[in-house]
Amino acid sequence: MFPYSSGNYQIPNPNYRFIPQGQYYNPYSEPPQRLTFVLVHGSWADVHFWDGVAAVLRSQGNIVYTPEYAGHGTDSNKKVTHAMITKSVVDYIKQLNLHDFILVGHSFGGTVIQKVSEQVPDRIKRLVFWDAFVLKDGESLADELPPQTRQGFEELRKMSDDDTIMLPFETFRALFVNTATTNDAKLFYASVAPEPAKPLFENLDLKAFYALQIPKSYVYFFQDNVLPQGEGYGWNPHMSTRLGLFRLIVGDGDHFTDTRTRPAYLAQKIYDASRD
Amino acid sequence: MFPYSSGNYQIPNPNYRFIPQGQYYNPYSEPPQRLTFVLVHGSWADVHFWDGVAAVLRSQGNIVYTPEYAGHGTDSNKKVTHAMITKSVVDYIKQLNLHDFILVGHSFGGTVIQKVSEQVPDRIKRLVFWDAFVLKDGESLADELPPQTRQGFEELRKMSDDDTIMLPFETFRALFVNTATTNDAKLFYASVAPEPAKPLFENLDLKAFYALQIPKSYVYFFQDNVLPQGEGYGWNPHMSTRLGLFRLIVGDGDHFTDTRTRPAYLAQKIYDASRD
Amino acid sequence: MFPYSSGNYQIPNPNYRFIPQGQYYNPYSEPPQRLTFVLVHGSWADVHFWDGVAAVLRSQGNIVYTPEYAGHGTDSNKKVTHAMITKSVVDYIKQLNLHDFILVGHSFGGTVIQKVSEQVPDRIKRLVFWDAFVLKDGESLADELPPQTRQGFEELRKMSDDDTIMLPFETFRALFVNTATTNDAKLFYASVAPEPAKPLFENLDLKAFYALQIPKSYVYFFQDNVLPQGEGYGWNPHMSTRLGLFRLIVGDGDHFTDTRTRPAYLAQKIYDASRD
Repeated sequence: MFPYSSGNYQIPNPNYRFIPQGQYYNPYSEPPQRLTFVLVHGSWADVHFWDGVAAVLRSQGNIVYTPEYAGHGTDSNKKVTHAMITKSVVDYIKQLNLHDFILVGHSFGGTVIQKVSEQVPDRIKRLVFWDAFVLKDGESLADELPPQTRQGFEELRKMSDDDTIMLPFETFRALFVNTATTNDAKLFYASVAPEPAKPLFENLDLKAFYALQIPKSYVYFFQDNVLPQGEGYGWNPHMSTRLGLFRLIVGDGDHFTDTRTRPAYLAQKIYDASRD
Repeated sequence: MFPYSSGNYQIPNPNYRFIPQGQYYNPYSEPPQRLTFVLVHGSWADVHFWDGVAAVLRSQGNIVYTPEYAGHGTDSNKKVTHAMITKSVVDYIKQLNLHDFILVGHSFGGTVIQKVSEQVPDRIKRLVFWDAFVLKDGESLADELPPQTRQGFEELRKMSDDDTIMLPFETFRALFVNTATTNDAKLFYASVAPEPAKPLFENLDLKAFYALQIPKSYVYFFQDNVLPQGEGYGWNPHMSTRLGLFRLIVGDGDHFTDTRTRPAYLAQKIYDASRD
Repeated sequence: MFPYSSGNYQIPNPNYRFIPQGQYYNPYSEPPQRLTFVLVHGSWADVHFWDGVAAVLRSQGNIVYTPEYAGHGTDSNKKVTHAMITKSVVDYIKQLNLHDFILVGHSFGGTVIQKVSEQVPDRIKRLVFWDAFVLKDGESLADELPPQTRQGFEELRKMSDDDTIMLPFETFRALFVNTATTNDAKLFYASVAPEPAKPLFENLDLKAFYALQIPKSYVYFFQDNVLPQGEGYGWNPHMSTRLGLFRLIVGDGDHFTDTRTRPAYLAQKIYDASRD
């Protein structure tokens, strides 16, 4: 959990003392760091999930990449594996020869950045998980679902003729966009496509991931309703603590809504998790 | 947990794409839905508990009912049962012939709306629990209290000569109005009357409740101090997850205070939980 | 858990009814209570930790004391025990003959105010724990750390030649100032000195503490990342509930940052926890 390299030890400056200013501190007075982001979306989404956040981050001088992956977006082939999805992102990173970037994963995207980081660890400056799955070695995403949710996913999977899962509107509305207005919930749902089921049930070998020394952060939004937050389930602390030493950033939002309604707020939280 | 009716499946519109607006989204630009609410208060309260919230909801075009129930308000008979309390609300609904309403329960009122919904399920559009008890089949409210609190309630019950529980000021101040100013805490306490004890210790048959298909929401205020939030107790996720599929809305407030100090904020959270 | 003295029972005033004002309530319209505070800092800090908060509290008419304790600040002797630290604060209180004060402890300071309150219970008006350890009788602070953190502390302890623990920057940044800007994190770290290790591993006899009848409050900041908040660890409810009846106040902040960036916000939360 602790990095012990003596290089981290800075000489304390005993002359530094805080002088109260009598007013709230303005975090924007410090020139922002310019970073490179690679944003990896989750299930029932495509790269347009990040449109709002990427626009805000770019407007503040950051460089932002949003790779699509197998079985999503314009890829009509739904018969994909977790390895194919990982390969999509790794290939994207290698072809563009990206280095020193913040690799952000949302939801299922957490499992993707776990596997991507095993393959290109030296290119990554920091891993940021936003309400994202952090699987233990050997687990599948489905192993982190409460029994009722897992059973629901399995039944939906059986109902499909191409091994996908399509969320009914009521399920999506209650779990993914619970804070949205009625109209926004419908607009979100209009862009939801059936999700390839297999990658959600594949057990992942993550031994290499847990040996990596890349800095890590976890962004947790406290209105997220995809998983219960406690009683053996949930984003934080249940899965976040598997990261060992990590920076925590907490925000007020749910699983999807703020990407469209408050992209600047979400972008700020991701930036707070990403800066040095 | 999942409603699978094919009627819920909407055809995705591939042309819908979010266009970043460069500014925060205004949720008030969407015309609000007009709803009918039936608000059911909890223990150590009467219908005036809802005065502020009802005024705000009505000012926004909603219809609001606040039934009183046996053993509370102007009813001087404190020897009541949970069934009598349920009957008060059911009779109120039938006499006014209410339909298609949002049934909201707060605290002990959660157990009341559980039982009311068993008797008039077809009249209810949605159940909303706000920091409210959701009992398992066969449980009593007292079963959800930590041992120390339960023992305190039992000792207070024995001290009364009419089988009621009167909360000492310090207990009420610490658990129910913890965020209030000193004066507001005293004003709240001035309207607290002894609570009939028996309904808090009655085991409830809730098999019918758990077979109902009514949509459900849970509003959780994170400064609520009536129950510890974790370690096997609490509003969310401990009791909320018993609802199966539910919409979660989280707010910043305690158990009572915001009804008087920030009724518009609380009304907005209840509305967010209630709209389609 | 419940104070039952009949003196607490106030006659309900049935004429009091809330009249909705149609606007948000202003908590500042009630003249603030003027209180006396004794603020006890935690590990890797000295009395300057409180500079901002004390300045705000004083500007609002409160009296504020910030005792330094053995092994910290200008005390170059790092070979201290928990009893020596407690004695520093008790001596300070006795020499200044302080009475009727709010005793506030932060982090490790929670264990200090537990022991101080055993020695001068009649002088204390209320105990306030802010993201502070509340140890069980016989426990050490180290017993409340997750295994990985405890092991990290033990390894850092062994690395020192004077039985202290110096946090590497990455650890401090991730756990103590996770919400801070990069520059602020560095400024905070510049004032961090090696912490005497022994008091963190001493088992404390707290039988007398758990027999005290002093009112208690707990301030919990939900971005605090020193301990996981759940799964058997954490500030609230894991340790807070050991206080029995306590007033909960929740704020948005981490373990250290807000003392410098938002002292007025933190001071308000401490005041909210302290008033009658």
